Amino acid sequence: MLPDQQILRIPGPTPIPPRVQRAMSQPMIGHRGDEAKELLEDITPKLKPVFGTEEEVLVLAGSGTAGLETAVVNTVKPGDEVLVIVTGAFGDRFAKICDAYEIRYHRLDVPWGEAVHSEKVAHLLQQHPGISAVFCTYCETSTGVLNPVADIAKAVRQYSNALVIVDGVSAVGGAETKMDEWGVDVVVTGSQKALMLPAGLTFIAASKRAWKAMEENNRSRFYFDLRKYRDNLEKNSTPFTPAVSLLYGLQEVLKLLEEEGLEEVYRRHQLMMKMTRAAFQALDIPLFTADSDASPTVTAVKPADFDPEMLRKAVKEDFGLTLAGGQQHLKGQIFRIGHMGYCSPADVLQTISLLEIGLTKIGKSIELGKGVQAAQEIYVNQEGQK
Amino acid sequence: MLPDQQILRIPGPTPIPPRVQRAMSQPMIGHRGDEAKELLEDITPKLKPVFGTEEEVLVLAGSGTAGLETAVVNTVKPGDEVLVIVTGAFGDRFAKICDAYEIRYHRLDVPWGEAVHSEKVAHLLQQHPGISAVFCTYCETSTGVLNPVADIAKAVRQYSNALVIVDGVSAVGGAETKMDEWGVDVVVTGSQKALMLPAGLTFIAASKRAWKAMEENNRSRFYFDLRKYRDNLEKNSTPFTPAVSLLYGLQEVLKLLEEEGLEEVYRRHQLMMKMTRAAFQALDIPLFTADSDASPTVTAVKPADFDPEMLRKAVKEDFGLTLAGGQQHLKGQIFRIGHMGYCSPADVLQTISLLEIGLTKIGKSIELGKGVQAAQEIYVNQEGQK
Repeated sequence: MLPDQQILRIPGPTPIPPRVQRAMSQPMIGHRGDEAKELLEDITPKLKPVFGTEEEVLVLAGSGTAGLETAVVNTVKPGDEVLVIVTGAFGDRFAKICDAYEIRYHRLDVPWGEAVHSEKVAHLLQQHPGISAVFCTYCETSTGVLNPVADIAKAVRQYSNALVIVDGVSAVGGAETKMDEWGVDVVVTGSQKALMLPAGLTFIAASKRAWKAMEENNRSRFYFDLRKYRDNLEKNSTPFTPAVSLLYGLQEVLKLLEEEGLEEVYRRHQLMMKMTRAAFQALDIPLFTADSDASPTVTAVKPADFDPEMLRKAVKEDFGLTLAGGQQHLKGQIFRIGHMGYCSPADVLQTISLLEIGLTKIGKSIELGKGVQAAQEIYVNQEGQK
Repeated sequence: MLPDQQILRIPGPTPIPPRVQRAMSQPMIGHRGDEAKELLEDITPKLKPVFGTEEEVLVLAGSGTAGLETAVVNTVKPGDEVLVIVTGAFGDRFAKICDAYEIRYHRLDVPWGEAVHSEKVAHLLQQHPGISAVFCTYCETSTGVLNPVADIAKAVRQYSNALVIVDGVSAVGGAETKMDEWGVDVVVTGSQKALMLPAGLTFIAASKRAWKAMEENNRSRFYFDLRKYRDNLEKNSTPFTPAVSLLYGLQEVLKLLEEEGLEEVYRRHQLMMKMTRAAFQALDIPLFTADSDASPTVTAVKPADFDPEMLRKAVKEDFGLTLAGGQQHLKGQIFRIGHMGYCSPADVLQTISLLEIGLTKIGKSIELGKGVQAAQEIYVNQEGQK
């Protein structure tokens, strides 16, 4: 393979656009000076449409998990009873956080690879009227499933006053997110997925209902106390040291999203999903999720007659192409392709062409070019409809 | 298209490897200090194998044309008579430099798209025994032709004492170059082609015979006086201010070439040429050069039934894919694909998949995926033979 060539197609971290890389390499500034204030002042309003909210989006230095924990400790009072929807490894993470805080929770387990049905959520809420919050994952990164967050929020609102708290980590910035319109109360995401940044920032937006619950919550918290971030943001500041270079990168990311237009960003991700899925369908290699449950940001494939680990190894060795494997019980069962953030239909075509070679090299009999052709046809037909 | 995505597939400048980009962003140093000496001391021996020579390779701040002019003014004494082989726009450039210096030259014009035959050179040298230097182009960037430099040098040596002076600008670092073994006297190249750097450096190596001619040459020259560069290099220095950041980049490029191994670098370029050519052959779109004359670094295509400018526009608009058009009388007749330097078989497959979409969009009827398939087959078969 060509030295120094990385073709990174995992569902996060994702490649960094050159403009963002350059923005992050600006000389360091003091985080209590005017430049830092101007930076936050510029970023803050531009984050709102990405979350589909009129509320403030708060930015913390931390990973996505820090954001999930922040959501839990701020919204769940001691003694509360919550519902955790688990469609994969990241739904399970909410449950683990609840365990760590000894929060009583009902667990709605859905077979990995499927999306949750909102009727099941409604049913559980009717059975347990004391539930004060529902935790769910928008894109379940571990399976490539996109849960129907709008439907879930609607069902919750119909049967309960519970807060709807969404892990948007591999979705926000790639999959349409309309927090206010959908009636979602909290959306969390991380920087290293569709937001095209290195890991290190987590983002949380909360509805007025959620803010009320957070105000009334006496649970011990310090770094993750979201009220501090909100109060400081009013003065374009942060309660603790912000990750300044990542904020410079974020400023540039928001410019890129504005330039492309959010609707076009979402359309591009849908297109990349359809191209990827069409390729595997043409090659007769089973996808792990149904079309109706598929995420626009990550596609999981569950081969029937070859070892996904051998394929991953082959394309990594030959081309520096990195794909993700399965997590937990899906290890060795599936492989996952990230197509989000700084990723284009051109990159999807490249990935498929390399996968076809990898398949051939590990002895899987396919017709070379057939997956590429199917993806190209999707592209040509979609573009014709614009 | 995805904002900030550039897919640069012209025959120079070529993409910069991230490691080289990082190397070039090192803080500036004084060019007369120890760091600069150490930099030159590290670079100098590593350049030699790239040129296939035991002689020093001198590095000047300047474009490729500066290197060609340096070759002319140092090797051609006032009153000398020379031969210029013109197989395209860059052969013609040697002639224009000779014009500027009122140097008397014989011009051997070869139809663009074909390589020169060494017999023709031999014939001309027999007719004109006074010729003191033969100028030729190794890879003719404007047509994608690789001239048989080894054969030309052999023919010259057989019939004459003329110096063999080679423009290696889009070849050195991508096409095998064995200056000493082939009996070539001067090789010139630039930084922005197979050497994976921005433009701004030019490189010249000269044989002992060439150095003798240069010593005896009383032509006026100052910045381009190669003797100054040689004498300074003995002290790991330069006569004039060197382009330090490009030298940092060059240091990293030479590491990359060492890591991959020059033989592998040449093999990769051959493979990319074969993949590209197989794709167009499968699509039944005429190549501009015969297989025997084809360069491993650039491929020119001469469509019979579509406008290459429309295709270039289509792929640029949709994907940010930049291809080169034709030069001089070939404008609007051909398009050219660069596949050299920081470019891999994975990049070639991507380029072809995008070209196929572009062809479809401009109304050329092709079977999508067919060119990709042909290129994939070349890759799989070649790799099988390793």
